[in-house]
Amino acid sequence: MRVGVLTGGGDCPGLNAVIRSVVRKGVQDYAWRFVGITDGWRGALNDVTMPLDVPAVRGILPLGGTILGSSRTNPLRLEDGVDRIKNTLSAHKLDALIVIGGEDTLTVATALSDAGVNLVGVPKTIDNDVGGTDYTFGFDTAVNIATEAIDRLHTTAESHKRTLVVEVMGRHSGWIALHAGVAGGANAILIPELEFDLDQVCAWVEKRFEINYAPIVVAAEGAVPKAGQMVVKDESRDEFGHVRLSGIGDWLAQEIESRTEKDARMTALGHVQRGGTPTAYDRWLATRFGLHAIAAVKVGDFGTMVALHGTDIVRIPLAVATRATKRVPPELYAEFDVFFGT
Amino acid sequence: MRVGVLTGGGDCPGLNAVIRSVVRKGVQDYAWRFVGITDGWRGALNDVTMPLDVPAVRGILPLGGTILGSSRTNPLRLEDGVDRIKNTLSAHKLDALIVIGGEDTLTVATALSDAGVNLVGVPKTIDNDVGGTDYTFGFDTAVNIATEAIDRLHTTAESHKRTLVVEVMGRHSGWIALHAGVAGGANAILIPELEFDLDQVCAWVEKRFEINYAPIVVAAEGAVPKAGQMVVKDESRDEFGHVRLSGIGDWLAQEIESRTEKDARMTALGHVQRGGTPTAYDRWLATRFGLHAIAAVKVGDFGTMVALHGTDIVRIPLAVATRATKRVPPELYAEFDVFFGT
Amino acid sequence: MRVGVLTGGGDCPGLNAVIRSVVRKGVQDYAWRFVGITDGWRGALNDVTMPLDVPAVRGILPLGGTILGSSRTNPLRLEDGVDRIKNTLSAHKLDALIVIGGEDTLTVATALSDAGVNLVGVPKTIDNDVGGTDYTFGFDTAVNIATEAIDRLHTTAESHKRTLVVEVMGRHSGWIALHAGVAGGANAILIPELEFDLDQVCAWVEKRFEINYAPIVVAAEGAVPKAGQMVVKDESRDEFGHVRLSGIGDWLAQEIESRTEKDARMTALGHVQRGGTPTAYDRWLATRFGLHAIAAVKVGDFGTMVALHGTDIVRIPLAVATRATKRVPPELYAEFDVFFGT
Amino acid sequence: MRVGVLTGGGDCPGLNAVIRSVVRKGVQDYAWRFVGITDGWRGALNDVTMPLDVPAVRGILPLGGTILGSSRTNPLRLEDGVDRIKNTLSAHKLDALIVIGGEDTLTVATALSDAGVNLVGVPKTIDNDVGGTDYTFGFDTAVNIATEAIDRLHTTAESHKRTLVVEVMGRHSGWIALHAGVAGGANAILIPELEFDLDQVCAWVEKRFEINYAPIVVAAEGAVPKAGQMVVKDESRDEFGHVRLSGIGDWLAQEIESRTEKDARMTALGHVQRGGTPTAYDRWLATRFGLHAIAAVKVGDFGTMVALHGTDIVRIPLAVATRATKRVPPELYAEFDVFFGT
Repeated sequence: MRVGVLTGGGDCPGLNAVIRSVVRKGVQDYAWRFVGITDGWRGALNDVTMPLDVPAVRGILPLGGTILGSSRTNPLRLEDGVDRIKNTLSAHKLDALIVIGGEDTLTVATALSDAGVNLVGVPKTIDNDVGGTDYTFGFDTAVNIATEAIDRLHTTAESHKRTLVVEVMGRHSGWIALHAGVAGGANAILIPELEFDLDQVCAWVEKRFEINYAPIVVAAEGAVPKAGQMVVKDESRDEFGHVRLSGIGDWLAQEIESRTEKDARMTALGHVQRGGTPTAYDRWLATRFGLHAIAAVKVGDFGTMVALHGTDIVRIPLAVATRATKRVPPELYAEFDVFFGT
Repeated sequence: MRVGVLTGGGDCPGLNAVIRSVVRKGVQDYAWRFVGITDGWRGALNDVTMPLDVPAVRGILPLGGTILGSSRTNPLRLEDGVDRIKNTLSAHKLDALIVIGGEDTLTVATALSDAGVNLVGVPKTIDNDVGGTDYTFGFDTAVNIATEAIDRLHTTAESHKRTLVVEVMGRHSGWIALHAGVAGGANAILIPELEFDLDQVCAWVEKRFEINYAPIVVAAEGAVPKAGQMVVKDESRDEFGHVRLSGIGDWLAQEIESRTEKDARMTALGHVQRGGTPTAYDRWLATRFGLHAIAAVKVGDFGTMVALHGTDIVRIPLAVATRATKRVPPELYAEFDVFFGT
Repeated sequence: MRVGVLTGGGDCPGLNAVIRSVVRKGVQDYAWRFVGITDGWRGALNDVTMPLDVPAVRGILPLGGTILGSSRTNPLRLEDGVDRIKNTLSAHKLDALIVIGGEDTLTVATALSDAGVNLVGVPKTIDNDVGGTDYTFGFDTAVNIATEAIDRLHTTAESHKRTLVVEVMGRHSGWIALHAGVAGGANAILIPELEFDLDQVCAWVEKRFEINYAPIVVAAEGAVPKAGQMVVKDESRDEFGHVRLSGIGDWLAQEIESRTEKDARMTALGHVQRGGTPTAYDRWLATRFGLHAIAAVKVGDFGTMVALHGTDIVRIPLAVATRATKRVPPELYAEFDVFFGT
Repeated sequence: MRVGVLTGGGDCPGLNAVIRSVVRKGVQDYAWRFVGITDGWRGALNDVTMPLDVPAVRGILPLGGTILGSSRTNPLRLEDGVDRIKNTLSAHKLDALIVIGGEDTLTVATALSDAGVNLVGVPKTIDNDVGGTDYTFGFDTAVNIATEAIDRLHTTAESHKRTLVVEVMGRHSGWIALHAGVAGGANAILIPELEFDLDQVCAWVEKRFEINYAPIVVAAEGAVPKAGQMVVKDESRDEFGHVRLSGIGDWLAQEIESRTEKDARMTALGHVQRGGTPTAYDRWLATRFGLHAIAAVKVGDFGTMVALHGTDIVRIPLAVATRATKRVPPELYAEFDVFFGT
């Protein structure tokens, strides 16, 4: 049996842990051969590969990044994209492919699976917004990094009686903002799923100052105020109508400062949330996803994705996973109302 | 409405986060009054309490320990224990009690509930071995601390080509050992649920040296070798027949060194695993447990315990939770076979 | 003996450690009384104070921020500033004042000392640019936070073969950039002390890609390119001619991306570098500074500042300390040439 | 020019950082060739070497341990030890040797230098007890690990009103204990340089309980009580008369518990203090030591050791460095009296 492995999309702590457990399980228990496809779908299109054996995966469990490289190349935009990938797989006599990636990467995988490629998906995103799985690896690491940053900002906010706005990752979903905001004791949490009311945010900020504390506002990069509150030019919005990265935090800090007449500062955590060593949770989840991906290949259960349900790793159809972005449910967000502004 | 809160048993990161969310939800949303019962059941027996209002819980979310204090006092061992606790609750006109604790504490809670006390339980243990809930808060923190220690020990093991044995907490269950061992890339993981074979462990160690790497052996403090392999005097065993704390790691290092004729060293992480600031995951879980405990009190669903099922917080009968210690299932342990000795 | 204590300027990990050791030494060894002056010089101007005794300083050693509050208020800009401060000191019958602050705060202290106030200075700045002392507390914490961020960014840079620009604090000096850049293995380090050549930076970036690695560029916020390379409007420069905060990193990433035709991304670490728990080194240094400030007050050696020389704490005239910003010497910067671009 | 490099003695964070900067400076600036001598003096005796070029040192800056391996082999105990090492150096046509190690390793280096070998020493020890240098790399990392552990233990001590004894490394010197104890806010710090009085320690413990806090006692592994207070059999003492590793902490916890009649627990941090990624400070110092060792070789200043004086790296005769262990001066220890027992 010969199996290809590729990682696609943005960086995410735990990718190497998946690669390691895939290779070790496949080689040691079944004597399979592996081929590393480099830089995501780009390597699959252009037939760029690397050797992938047990020595190659030694010591990579605690390392961030991916030894295979990654890219955001989307082969479905090319007329012959699917054929070129199939050619690459044939050239290397690959019986199966393990695809580790987020929504975009898995959408390609779904198309390839429909086109007859034997593959198994492994969900990956720091944003936690792939459907069908309780959590994805990388998310816990991102949340811990953001929480630690919020912990640090609290003391500065208090010492200077300032508002501190923290912009965290999440263009389409607010999972990181909600988890880190709750864990960090934020006084307002703004997520893409629910338009926020700037008047309400400023009222929360004022209330916090009134009890002689300083407010922390956590905003996902995709958070948007309700219609009419933000006057921005068209060219600073992206294709989804969201304000561009580094936009919302800056804007919030300026608005809050001018309305409350108290200093406000902004920090955008940026790529720091995507890299470096994974937490124990993410290493555990990534390792198990890798082992169960091999189990799926072993029994030929292709067109599926491994997923976490409670404490079990299960397999679900790829199509289910990529049907829609998993968003924060309003009732979960509402659980934490009590902490806002106080 | 007047509600008492107590924390019992060993220290556990996240206790303060539960107390904070309980008090803030109860006071801010329902205008309830709270009474803090100090040092677990000891305070309940002796009527020692402290004020517990919103100012008292400010800033405690990231702090380890419990502002209420704790103890291992078991009132069921006193003839009049239950009555004295009921008297304390009456004296303070408490309508309900929120009990945050592990197996022992919740067993007392079950007895009190049977005796007519209106109470809701919140499961707490770094060991993750309370039944009926996917996870308990404190566990993730303990696993991360142990994993970070293993990461550090790897480099020393390699530089000196030594075996390093890491003894982690877990007298009756191997959850910390298994999770930290997998996350830390251990070459052998020994848990109380499964007797280990010292010959097998030494074979794993030797195999690791053969490929020119150095082995890390993670052992739960309650791990035991198969019958006959350990010759220890009765007085160094506890009531369950387990070797006492700080025993198994020492013993393993000595045996491995003498059998493999290569240096072996031992580190027992000890109480460091129990204290300090909780991880983001534990703060999130503890905060939600607190909010849902208030929800249970609000609707009068007493005799229950809040629990995590997947991503939902549910309520289960206290009796279900305390029926048996939750142990590592053999099939979960077996998933990681491939990493042992290699 | 009655002693006032104030903290001024930007937030800095270790302020609370100084306050704690000052109060504990003064109270426990000499039975002095302390008065906390709140929010830096603002409290001194407006006679706003708080009690400052041993219970008030318990538990604050590991906490970031300052329990006294801080501000950037400069009393020298007010005609009657010095007199109002002297009145406050008289009103509280203060025999001496301990002033913990950076360049601006200590410049005010120097003026007050010249005007007859008995005071001792304690240098504080995460930027490490106060003269006369080897290091200031807060700096080590900032450097560690920045280094950890660079560690994380390396894996993302490699996985995506991108340039990552990290903007760290330092408007007038490059100490954080240099230390964190060296510790984090940066491929280019840009500091305010030396104009950089954008062509050179791009050459370093290209060289790094050629050997199949991805470059990390660390830039102090006050770094400036050589004349003519940056075309910016006057209004985006500050009074010193430096590009404003969040300017240089953004600009660099855009220029590097457009010149090298490879993706470049930017992260500005911002206020995360200023807050939160101090490192062991900063707690040690801050604690010793506090103890030695009390020793100076004890012997009446006013108009001085405590300073670190090697492993000794010494006292130097305040005027020496505030004469000039301590900048990175060119020969120190040159030591690390070998790591640039390779 | 051909240069050998070896690392000797116990593990220490920063070894790889030295190796990296030595090789990069030598190769890139002077086109020298390097030979890695494996496992300290053992490799030098037995002519076991490994290639050491720029690709070999890529990515090792943040890694603990040493890619060259280490050992505690002492060639001076062999009659022909020096000759065998000289033969190995000749066989590889080495013009110079860079020796990275602690007291033992540098004592061998001194003898070899006296015997005509061209070498430069780099001091290494987590214990900070090599003479002639303000600090050694590895020490700051060890102190931070110990401080973080103390931070965690505080909350458990408070929650349970227990004494917690923390045993840290330091058989012959108390640098780690003193720095971590001060940074962690310990209530008693016991170091090998000064016999402690158990009655005094218990008095401090009692005093701490009286003000309703719980005590943390930090003890270096080489701390000893005054004559007569400890009754231990000869066989549990080492060659220096010190109680063996894991002895003093255990003994203290038992004595304190039995004398104060309050629970006491012990944690021995062990090898966790020696491994893993170095702090920013240690990476900076190790990198500079490596660069300056190359500078010494370049000018032929052999028989010297690089050392830190203030913020300068200087060269001192090897003999000066190895003359005596650097111990904590009594007056430095006395600075912190005020924190003991309170």
